[in-house]
Amino acid sequence: MGIVVQKFGGTSLADSEKIKNVARAVIKEKENGNNVITIVSAMGHTTDFLIKLSEEVSNVPSAREMDMLLSTGEQVSASLLAMAIEEMGHPAISLNAWQVGIETEPEYSNARIIDIKTERLNKHLEEGKIIIITGFQGIANGDITTLGRGGSDTSAVAVAVAVKANRCDIYTDVEGVYTSDPRIVPNALPLKEISYEEMFELAHVGANVLHPRSVETAREFEMPMRVRSSFKLDNLGTLIIGVDKMEVTKPVTGVARDNSQVRVVICDVEDKPGNASKLFNLLAANNLSVDMIIQSYARSSNNTNDIAFTIASENLNRFKAHEEEIKSILNLSNIFIDENISKISIVGSGMIDRPGIAAGMFQSLAKAGINIKMIATSEIKISCLVDREDSEKAVVELCRHFELDGLEVAEVRGNLPSDVL
Amino acid sequence: MGIVVQKFGGTSLADSEKIKNVARAVIKEKENGNNVITIVSAMGHTTDFLIKLSEEVSNVPSAREMDMLLSTGEQVSASLLAMAIEEMGHPAISLNAWQVGIETEPEYSNARIIDIKTERLNKHLEEGKIIIITGFQGIANGDITTLGRGGSDTSAVAVAVAVKANRCDIYTDVEGVYTSDPRIVPNALPLKEISYEEMFELAHVGANVLHPRSVETAREFEMPMRVRSSFKLDNLGTLIIGVDKMEVTKPVTGVARDNSQVRVVICDVEDKPGNASKLFNLLAANNLSVDMIIQSYARSSNNTNDIAFTIASENLNRFKAHEEEIKSILNLSNIFIDENISKISIVGSGMIDRPGIAAGMFQSLAKAGINIKMIATSEIKISCLVDREDSEKAVVELCRHFELDGLEVAEVRGNLPSDVL
Repeated sequence: MGIVVQKFGGTSLADSEKIKNVARAVIKEKENGNNVITIVSAMGHTTDFLIKLSEEVSNVPSAREMDMLLSTGEQVSASLLAMAIEEMGHPAISLNAWQVGIETEPEYSNARIIDIKTERLNKHLEEGKIIIITGFQGIANGDITTLGRGGSDTSAVAVAVAVKANRCDIYTDVEGVYTSDPRIVPNALPLKEISYEEMFELAHVGANVLHPRSVETAREFEMPMRVRSSFKLDNLGTLIIGVDKMEVTKPVTGVARDNSQVRVVICDVEDKPGNASKLFNLLAANNLSVDMIIQSYARSSNNTNDIAFTIASENLNRFKAHEEEIKSILNLSNIFIDENISKISIVGSGMIDRPGIAAGMFQSLAKAGINIKMIATSEIKISCLVDREDSEKAVVELCRHFELDGLEVAEVRGNLPSDVL
Repeated sequence: MGIVVQKFGGTSLADSEKIKNVARAVIKEKENGNNVITIVSAMGHTTDFLIKLSEEVSNVPSAREMDMLLSTGEQVSASLLAMAIEEMGHPAISLNAWQVGIETEPEYSNARIIDIKTERLNKHLEEGKIIIITGFQGIANGDITTLGRGGSDTSAVAVAVAVKANRCDIYTDVEGVYTSDPRIVPNALPLKEISYEEMFELAHVGANVLHPRSVETAREFEMPMRVRSSFKLDNLGTLIIGVDKMEVTKPVTGVARDNSQVRVVICDVEDKPGNASKLFNLLAANNLSVDMIIQSYARSSNNTNDIAFTIASENLNRFKAHEEEIKSILNLSNIFIDENISKISIVGSGMIDRPGIAAGMFQSLAKAGINIKMIATSEIKISCLVDREDSEKAVVELCRHFELDGLEVAEVRGNLPSDVL
């Protein structure tokens, strides 16, 4: 008997009727003949409600106490789901992080899982029980830690790896991973399959389907994942697997838009060694993550560089607090900030060793009259910064160019073990 | 430096403003020069809200999952209180039952504490931290247990005993333990002191100030307790101590009314050995607790007894389900149930070896024209069953007779260690 690990998010668990619906989905998998372990997030807006309470009692609540507070949300949904499953006649048991033994680094708010004990899980599975585990949380040195927003996805994959599950199903309110945002490209379709690498890049550039760390973990341990709808149980959604197991790889799998960044342009930085390093060291020391970076060639006329980079919009105020310091260190008069930008990315394992993909992207944007402000590339991703007002048009154009609209995706074939499907 | 353990109930923690108020009370005790450990209940109506959720997903939720669910309430209030205290500049840390190591019997819903580890508590106290502990809960065999409604009082006393605290303060929304219910006897006063034994009897007969098990534990380990107001911090409330440490003992300390019972009268039970035992065995086998019991002498005329007893109103439906069985076992035609009764009790360590107290009670009720339906006595308590419509008058009369109205209670004197006060 194989093991299937499932994860249900807060939207799927928002009220008692939805919890009963999830209970039916869990039981369906059990009745398919699998042992089932289900990871749950907190119900609906519980986490937001708890954060609001913390803000009422403290301006700067400690991360340790926030984790203590927020971890209750998953415990509520886990016990309610266990009750609902038992009410439907199947033995079930809810377990939180310390009961399972989900050990993380001793970090609060954004810990990484380092070990998951399997003794208790195996014992309850042997007893024939459906196990419900609180997602999003772990323990470290006797304290409760959390994995960061969306961390339940990572809990699910880590548990799946620990118990050697056949696969890990992430149930959401969408039908799978789409070629692009259906709100922008109405005829975008859910993909039947996508590689870990592609999904990882998409997760990072604004396709908010999965927690990036969950995809990273699944890739590392070759755990097949499915992204599927908790409201359409017969729909298998999107399978995420190793690129070597995919039969057909199109050059570009998805187009994503990320509106969460702002561009900072620093002009006329004197071109001498150490200036860029001073700048980025200062940003790093203040925990300001930088995404795209461009440094232009030194101009012959005055021997200065322009440096442009992007940071998360939510960090803009913190950046501004250091603006004067940066000016004085680099001897500048002006820093330009552009908030009306979007990052448009195309992702695809198939672009490796296939020339012309980048050229096709730039040409397609140019033909649509869209100006590219910055470019960054990785092996399987090309990102362009454009004006936010051009961003929807850019996504539509790129979907058209790379044939991702109304896409008839290839059927899943190849050398997958049959129990994954 | 001594240790003071405090407990705050849900009413005192109902919203963020009240949590901040409690934070100030905790800090006040710390600034008095004591190490402080604070036990908290769930905020306001959280427990009721969680029970409602459980009822929506299950008709008969398992006790294990209920404890898993309900224990989150205290974790929320504990972490919020720790945040509020830290915001006011004092280091604090919240701990739940597994983090402390509060071990209970392996019972759900109504477990008894069997051990409390002190390593982590002592460590954090040495670090100068105020410790906030989730009340009401424990662990057994890696599962979460709860101590029953009001169990946070018992958590507090048990922690106080474990860390050898100077005293245990139970903060409530009243100013202490009253001679009688102020809603009935408007000039009833809070007592300055009361013995464990008296408090234990009062807690059992409807004075809903303290969880009876907390008083039992405090008596066993001679832990001084205070019942005091979380809204009037300068008021020391009522001290609960050993009777040997009380300077003045009045014969009667308090009058309590209990409206939560119904009387069952079974007439014409044949007077032969084993009949009473059959009846009460059947009740016990069905988990129906009986409080007062009277068996009248066999009447010479027909050689039968009348048996009367009281059970909790909330168990009446379960009792009725067994009515026919009882009739057939005892060969009866009728069982009479009287729901309109109240149990009126007078309690006082001073009644031991002091004759005339019971007589005074009966005479006082008789003079007021109140009929007594049943009588039960213990060493320091006399209870009479009366018609519910007479119950307020009975309380008022007994307070007048035993001089408990407008009582000028004696100042606390005697051989108490000064650090208790």
